[in-house]
Amino acid sequence: MNPGGANPDETQIREVVRALQDAWNLHDMKAFASQFSEDADFVNVVGWWWQGRAEIEKKHAASHASWFRESTLKFTAVHLRFLTPQISLAHLESSLVGANRPDGTPAGLRTGILTLVFHKQADIWLIAAAHNTERISGVSPPTGPPKS
Amino acid sequence: MNPGGANPDETQIREVVRALQDAWNLHDMKAFASQFSEDADFVNVVGWWWQGRAEIEKKHAASHASWFRESTLKFTAVHLRFLTPQISLAHLESSLVGANRPDGTPAGLRTGILTLVFHKQADIWLIAAAHNTERISGVSPPTGPPKS
Repeated sequence: MNPGGANPDETQIREVVRALQDAWNLHDMKAFASQFSEDADFVNVVGWWWQGRAEIEKKHAASHASWFRESTLKFTAVHLRFLTPQISLAHLESSLVGANRPDGTPAGLRTGILTLVFHKQADIWLIAAAHNTERISGVSPPTGPPKS
Repeated sequence: MNPGGANPDETQIREVVRALQDAWNLHDMKAFASQFSEDADFVNVVGWWWQGRAEIEKKHAASHASWFRESTLKFTAVHLRFLTPQISLAHLESSLVGANRPDGTPAGLRTGILTLVFHKQADIWLIAAAHNTERISGVSPPTGPPKS
């Protein structure tokens, strides 16, 4: 950390995270996809794997024309960990309201956790890989002894 | 790529993937966790986020004493992409049989996709971050025009 101010790499990454959130809420999937590198990977909450910025834009545009059309996303916590000067992991906790289920009914509040891999190239931090999971309530970790 | 043989980094990473699969199937969670770096992150299929090798071992040991006790995991495809000489992304497609649901009933075949971030330190490739998702069948991507 830089005691005279924020680490500039961390500042840039947090700006990308903010731009991602803003683009979602404006349903501007071109702006959303522009936060990803050209060859980025994206795995969504049901395990669909999209490869490349163009596919990430196209598939998000389709979902924002339907079940995410009136949704609002908020990243409630952003945890950064630098692996190297060019690579940082980010774990983002999220809340989503206003989404619909595939059957058209309101989905209610959905919380999630998003892993992002950030890669700095030519002094620009972009997302190289994303993997998103909805937090499922009502599932408890196993705690008891092995069952016979 | 090395035309005279396999890229040694890729070979080492694939050995870690194989060791991960073998450890799961032996239900040896110490061996499983040893494929991760000391400060690794793991996000599981229901959005629980575990931090550090010790927690990854402990939480997997609990699940392998219960719902994964007789499960068999197979990585059916391994896709590698190097971001830098020290960092590689891996996307693993998986199938899991023999698991139980939290209520104790058989879960049947479960397919998934696992993102791994590999980090080479001191000539050793270990997993710095993992994020796993079960592929949900019966959910179709939105394809139609925006609904009024």
